[in-house]
Amino acid sequence: MSRADRVQARFEAVDALLVTDLVNLRYLTGFTGTNGFAVLAPGLRRFVTDFRYVERAAAEVEGFDRERAPQEFLSALGDGWPADIRRLGFEDHKLSVRQHAELRDVVPARIELVAAGGLVERERAVKEPAELEAIAVAAGLADEALSTALAGGLVGRTEREVALALEDAVRAGGGEPAFGTIVAAGVNGAAPHATPGDTPIAAGTLVTIDFGARLAGYNSDCTRTYAAGAVGEDLVAIYELVREAQAAALAAVRPGPEGHEIDAVARELIAAAGHAEHFGHGLGHGLGLEVHEAPRLSTTGTDALAVGNVVTVEPGVYVPGLGGVRIEDLVVLTDDGARVLSGHAKDLAVLD
Amino acid sequence: MSRADRVQARFEAVDALLVTDLVNLRYLTGFTGTNGFAVLAPGLRRFVTDFRYVERAAAEVEGFDRERAPQEFLSALGDGWPADIRRLGFEDHKLSVRQHAELRDVVPARIELVAAGGLVERERAVKEPAELEAIAVAAGLADEALSTALAGGLVGRTEREVALALEDAVRAGGGEPAFGTIVAAGVNGAAPHATPGDTPIAAGTLVTIDFGARLAGYNSDCTRTYAAGAVGEDLVAIYELVREAQAAALAAVRPGPEGHEIDAVARELIAAAGHAEHFGHGLGHGLGLEVHEAPRLSTTGTDALAVGNVVTVEPGVYVPGLGGVRIEDLVVLTDDGARVLSGHAKDLAVLD
Repeated sequence: MSRADRVQARFEAVDALLVTDLVNLRYLTGFTGTNGFAVLAPGLRRFVTDFRYVERAAAEVEGFDRERAPQEFLSALGDGWPADIRRLGFEDHKLSVRQHAELRDVVPARIELVAAGGLVERERAVKEPAELEAIAVAAGLADEALSTALAGGLVGRTEREVALALEDAVRAGGGEPAFGTIVAAGVNGAAPHATPGDTPIAAGTLVTIDFGARLAGYNSDCTRTYAAGAVGEDLVAIYELVREAQAAALAAVRPGPEGHEIDAVARELIAAAGHAEHFGHGLGHGLGLEVHEAPRLSTTGTDALAVGNVVTVEPGVYVPGLGGVRIEDLVVLTDDGARVLSGHAKDLAVLD
Repeated sequence: MSRADRVQARFEAVDALLVTDLVNLRYLTGFTGTNGFAVLAPGLRRFVTDFRYVERAAAEVEGFDRERAPQEFLSALGDGWPADIRRLGFEDHKLSVRQHAELRDVVPARIELVAAGGLVERERAVKEPAELEAIAVAAGLADEALSTALAGGLVGRTEREVALALEDAVRAGGGEPAFGTIVAAGVNGAAPHATPGDTPIAAGTLVTIDFGARLAGYNSDCTRTYAAGAVGEDLVAIYELVREAQAAALAAVRPGPEGHEIDAVARELIAAAGHAEHFGHGLGHGLGLEVHEAPRLSTTGTDALAVGNVVTVEPGVYVPGLGGVRIEDLVVLTDDGARVLSGHAKDLAVLD
């Protein structure tokens, strides 16, 4: 079955699905431009884009009837609807309130608009073998780039220098950074999403590096925390706590449990050590064409994990005024557990 | 007046405004993280973000009361509303249908939700002097990067090599590419948004290069088309047509007319030469914190141009199977016309 066929097999409350989200559109049709949409229904595969992307669509989009429409992209939905389509699903988590109002104006009144966001994302969460391979290649490139960046040491370099060295290595390998690389040293490490700065990294601090590569559309995501020179016992203690929590969560990852159950494994260990307040984000997230996608491993994650999911496992402890630790692996759900795609060691390494 | 004060002065059908769009949020508060919102009302300046960005917000956000909330970001809007707020504006062009439903569930029933998208964007369209300076600096960096990239010639290099050379030069200058650089040679130039490929650029073809830099949050955008070696008369003819249309449109840019009137100046010239079908996009767009923002210069652009607007003027002609031409300048609206920020010459240059 094609991806579109598999998504269609998920239809319950709708007769047709309008796909406007560009990542979902790429997944279903192969289209990499920035304006277009698709309509799926039994016997119906419409793909619409504007003037700028007609040639690209001809090269990329297969299995759909291709049409050109004005840049005001929903206008093509006014007519041509088969009589048996009475409920049109739309991506309510993506379509804006204004677009929805425009859609309602354009689509014949006899067709009901039904909130149906997430149908494509649920299919995307289960990766095909070629997708797993693409993610593994991206992860391998990112790992090599980290090695390149670390070869210059940490103490005395700025966070920004280390981040740029890593990103340059990703580009030299044919990829792009999957997101803005985080290099957070010392007290900056207490901010989970710090921006790299221009202060030289001091000896005796922890340095958290969160990085990824994008290659052929697919992403990777990994975090390691290193000691820049020897660090004090207080920092070693939070490192070992996160290391333990990450290992326990990794061991719990397997098909079946819901996301919040895996999150709880790490969260309870960290809370028991008195750091509940210092782990304010979710344990992890799915990854693929987007860096953050289904399923979520967080206190509110209710998707049951399934074979073929790709998720991050990334507990952290962030102590204001002291520093922070995050350790993140990228893993593939297999029949009997999880296969780790991240290659770098996780024992606390002291770098000069 | 602060930016928030100026936006508040635009309130008509609302007593308060919820700002969820991250670019608008950055404009109003200075916040550069990826999760947060603000509420503006007379005497009320709330800024809310989650755990990950509390430290960043403390460093960046001034003039607002800062709060921390869970990552499910709208939950903080349940209570604490002054009694005189009865109509809460929301950004209907950005807020998803699902977020709107969540918002409706959270906000007290006595408060009406009113579609109010565009209030901040209309303020953003009129740049402050420091913003104009930031855009000019980005444009200057991009111009230098183009010179660097062209120093290696065009014939025999691949589109991708030229694009990477340009982007590397932007990064070396401390910026980031504002968008994926377009280098489109020969028949690829007939696709306005082509992706750079690995085929060497052939002599006798036109090469369109669309590029920009982002620096300190502000963008630039410029396009030039060059001859790779001597080109035939048919290509020279479409180049001169676009050159003439671009000059005429530039001369028409001044405060007062609506966007579609400037668009028409170029469009009529191109149509009169028999190429109406080959100019399928709008003439230009506003630019600032985003590469595409208000006002639009297109057949449907109804914003009147005003002093302090920054817009692109970029007609093109794209002939399938032959090639394409686009010439784009970035201009600032002044009291008596437009000041061009793009520095490269526009006579057809033949490069080896």
